[in-house]
Amino acid sequence: MTQPLFERHREKLQDAVEAIRKRSHWSAYPEIPSGKIYGENAKKEGFEAYQNRLNQAFSIDQPGTGGGETIGGETSPYGPELGVTYPKPDLDQLIPAATLAMQGWKKASAEQRVGVCLEILDRLNKKSFELANAVMHTTGQGFMMAFQAGGPHAQDRGLEAVAYAWDEMQRTPSHATWSKRVSKTDTIVLDKTYRIVPRGVAVTIGCSTFPTWNSYPGIFASLATGNAVVVKPHPGAILPLAISVEVAREVIQEAGFDPNLVTLCVDSIDEPISKDLVMRPEVKIVDYTGNSEFGDWIEANARQAEVFTEKAGVNSIIIDSLEDLRAVTGNIAFTLCLYSGQMCTTSQNIFIPRDGIETGEGHKSFDEIAGAIVKAVDWFLSDPARASEVLGAIQNKNTAKRIGQARIDGGEVLRDSQPMTNERFPEARVHSPLMLKVDAKDESLFMREMFGPISYLISTDDTSQSIQLASKAASELGAITCALYSTNSDVIDSALDATADAGVPLSCNLTGQIFVNQSAAFSDFHVSGANPSGNATLCDSAYVSRRFNIVQSRIPAPQPAEKESEAHAGV
Amino acid sequence: MTQPLFERHREKLQDAVEAIRKRSHWSAYPEIPSGKIYGENAKKEGFEAYQNRLNQAFSIDQPGTGGGETIGGETSPYGPELGVTYPKPDLDQLIPAATLAMQGWKKASAEQRVGVCLEILDRLNKKSFELANAVMHTTGQGFMMAFQAGGPHAQDRGLEAVAYAWDEMQRTPSHATWSKRVSKTDTIVLDKTYRIVPRGVAVTIGCSTFPTWNSYPGIFASLATGNAVVVKPHPGAILPLAISVEVAREVIQEAGFDPNLVTLCVDSIDEPISKDLVMRPEVKIVDYTGNSEFGDWIEANARQAEVFTEKAGVNSIIIDSLEDLRAVTGNIAFTLCLYSGQMCTTSQNIFIPRDGIETGEGHKSFDEIAGAIVKAVDWFLSDPARASEVLGAIQNKNTAKRIGQARIDGGEVLRDSQPMTNERFPEARVHSPLMLKVDAKDESLFMREMFGPISYLISTDDTSQSIQLASKAASELGAITCALYSTNSDVIDSALDATADAGVPLSCNLTGQIFVNQSAAFSDFHVSGANPSGNATLCDSAYVSRRFNIVQSRIPAPQPAEKESEAHAGV
Repeated sequence: MTQPLFERHREKLQDAVEAIRKRSHWSAYPEIPSGKIYGENAKKEGFEAYQNRLNQAFSIDQPGTGGGETIGGETSPYGPELGVTYPKPDLDQLIPAATLAMQGWKKASAEQRVGVCLEILDRLNKKSFELANAVMHTTGQGFMMAFQAGGPHAQDRGLEAVAYAWDEMQRTPSHATWSKRVSKTDTIVLDKTYRIVPRGVAVTIGCSTFPTWNSYPGIFASLATGNAVVVKPHPGAILPLAISVEVAREVIQEAGFDPNLVTLCVDSIDEPISKDLVMRPEVKIVDYTGNSEFGDWIEANARQAEVFTEKAGVNSIIIDSLEDLRAVTGNIAFTLCLYSGQMCTTSQNIFIPRDGIETGEGHKSFDEIAGAIVKAVDWFLSDPARASEVLGAIQNKNTAKRIGQARIDGGEVLRDSQPMTNERFPEARVHSPLMLKVDAKDESLFMREMFGPISYLISTDDTSQSIQLASKAASELGAITCALYSTNSDVIDSALDATADAGVPLSCNLTGQIFVNQSAAFSDFHVSGANPSGNATLCDSAYVSRRFNIVQSRIPAPQPAEKESEAHAGV
Repeated sequence: MTQPLFERHREKLQDAVEAIRKRSHWSAYPEIPSGKIYGENAKKEGFEAYQNRLNQAFSIDQPGTGGGETIGGETSPYGPELGVTYPKPDLDQLIPAATLAMQGWKKASAEQRVGVCLEILDRLNKKSFELANAVMHTTGQGFMMAFQAGGPHAQDRGLEAVAYAWDEMQRTPSHATWSKRVSKTDTIVLDKTYRIVPRGVAVTIGCSTFPTWNSYPGIFASLATGNAVVVKPHPGAILPLAISVEVAREVIQEAGFDPNLVTLCVDSIDEPISKDLVMRPEVKIVDYTGNSEFGDWIEANARQAEVFTEKAGVNSIIIDSLEDLRAVTGNIAFTLCLYSGQMCTTSQNIFIPRDGIETGEGHKSFDEIAGAIVKAVDWFLSDPARASEVLGAIQNKNTAKRIGQARIDGGEVLRDSQPMTNERFPEARVHSPLMLKVDAKDESLFMREMFGPISYLISTDDTSQSIQLASKAASELGAITCALYSTNSDVIDSALDATADAGVPLSCNLTGQIFVNQSAAFSDFHVSGANPSGNATLCDSAYVSRRFNIVQSRIPAPQPAEKESEAHAGV
């Protein structure tokens, strides 16, 4: 029935499986928003498609929408309200429908399920420009970033999950013949089957900053392994996932399965539904991206489910010694500015020895290094168009408020945050980065997550203390990234050991067009699962293997004589 | 340092890895207790080695034993007290020592760790006769079973876990070169490393009936992936695991690692230590086999750890139709008698339509079928030597008491339980099986675990009800095995679907020398993880992948020019 979909995308799947084994650079979906790749009119058509979504009800034909009640109040961080409304879900109808939809899906072959997933990803890729606009105007990302992170990079992460799911489902054969000599004359021969049994209904809870990138892995890992998926977007970033659900339902229905395998479950800040949703007994898998408080709550309470979380953390940069000061500070400044520090991978704490460091241009004091980073940030923001594209807008009002609070809490202001103007979107919520100098002893200031364009430049006794504090933050508060700049191989080795123990990946001496806050599908493991920033990795086999069980059966094999008579009967 | 151990056992590991991929019949350690295989004097020497353990302190040089306090009160279900004492553990010394031992172990290569594990298994195999005696006189198993299940079969399960751990650790390369063209002139090249980071201290809690078989998988899965293991035996079956720990420590020390990677932690029924142990913050992995109540407690409370449980359940046999009544009843009777029904795989509930079934010899009534099973059980017990070997002894006094309680609770006694005499061990605790007839509506009697030689023959409306009740028991109470006898392929298909949904493996139409309560390493998944009988399988990739994390690093690759100059410098 859906084997053609598998065949259509077989080569891509094989390449993806090879990529996860090698973990060298590979990507399935082009990241350049070029007309040559996506079609000459793709950009214009994608923008129009997005515009056509606005100021009306999002149409989705799924159970529990009969009441006609709607919900939704997305406002672009660039200013305008989206005006899109979505059906208010009725869990008592939605969850049973999802459960029912699994009946046919779990009996489908792995090829069928994976074929459907690959076709969904392919169609999502074709909608990358529409998705880019939806992501931009819900998250506040600049357009280029919204296109890449919300489109092809998210699709790559989804494909990576499908590749792991496929690989995992192939590890156990579906059949085996077990033959054991039990005496001189007797041999027992059993036919054994190994059936993939999905866990149950899966819930994916999206975040407001990367609605597709962080949600696709869980959605596709669950779907490929036979589960139904209820998609619960963040109330501030619904549209990108609503479009994704629409595409998934379309493909699933065309392939002859029940579209309720993927459903949309929208709630609001005032009436959150997530607790009720994840505590439903039918829900056996939860994928969550968001703040640590609610992530911890889900881990502690949704005990009937396998829970995969990506929560918050405090990321560090350790500056020990370097060759090219300008190359390093430019690299750091881009990380601090990109999307106004609203990435879970953005560095917050920058540790520098208070006595300064050695550079290719001689010894530099703490203030010289800190000043050079500030200067590099200033340069990025000196061109309004560049500043707008790099900073994007602040997704959440609370993030903007946090900047003021950080200023009040303390630290010497090395670079103050100002409201900035986006020329295309005058109402955009834009604030430049705040940079504060503090001492290593001021842990109450920097040993906490200050999400947004806020960074601390921390003077330490020496690099050893810097490594110790960065590791402590990772172990106790969680961390998803850590950067080190050092020309000393002993320091690098020592940092490698410390950060591995703290479960945080280390990026050393990055300069040029590669940044600590970037995570590449098929090569970089995003979140280690080994510190409080999350209990799972995008992606590894543990991320997929817990979404299904194998239930076996065994029955005596037909005797050779029986087999022969069957053959004669033409069966 | 320990590469030689890996090389010594490389072929066995390769065969084991191939076996887990094919899941056809394979075994590494011979199950026949033959002098030709194990050495002409092996049986005698093993018995003597066991005898030499008795009535003295078990010597083990591990931290926290300085106080000199001892513990231990094992009594053989065959009568005599073992008289072995063990050091009373001090967790405040034991756990830090285990943590410290991981320093060198986690930096060892996967080859080194796996080599050590394989050598431990090899030496355990050579001690199979000693272990057989220790298992026999702690569990009450007959000698042959104690040899096989406690020796080679347990070693096979351990090797299976090592094979999965090895396979899993190989899935991600330790290094990758990531090369991305970022502009017409620039290519970024990063050297990436992926480090296996163990979770932390692992605890394995053993059970009283299969101390080695159920513990080896967790011990070896944790050890191979870089963790230290604290082995906490059941107070009634310490010696087999104490000997195993001794062997492990010996090999680890010889290989140049810290022997505290594997430690023994003995407690008593009166002063249980397991709760304190699993709640230690350093403990990051718990493997548990035992009753559901404490298993559920660990799952709910040891939240800092990855918890793998095998708990209890209610296993069923569904009789729908059959060819050869004698072959079927003989097979069932052996399952009911073997080790007095004290296997987690033993069937408890036998569902038979109240109007009887079709057989190769025509229609048979419920009473005829039930009577034939009783008769087959009687035959097994008619020969005292055979009875003693098959029944073994009752491990726990409470199991013996439960027989009386079952009689009081109700049901028509089809076969009463009697105390029996073991000619070699007059004080052995032996009780023949109790078989009760009840109706499908008497759920209060059979919808509960009645561990031991107690079975219910349940009259149902039809096979459809039988399947429904067996599935309900599995879904709600857990089940590890289910058997079906049917000549009807539609019935088989329907049972396959129902039992897969209930997460219980189905064995169809077993006769001859293969039994529903047997689970073969490398082929049968023991416990599905998909119902309340346990949350994990022996073994699959989910069983090993959660015992470590991968923490990566990335650093710009040396430029080609640099590489060249390095080469010229002869580096």
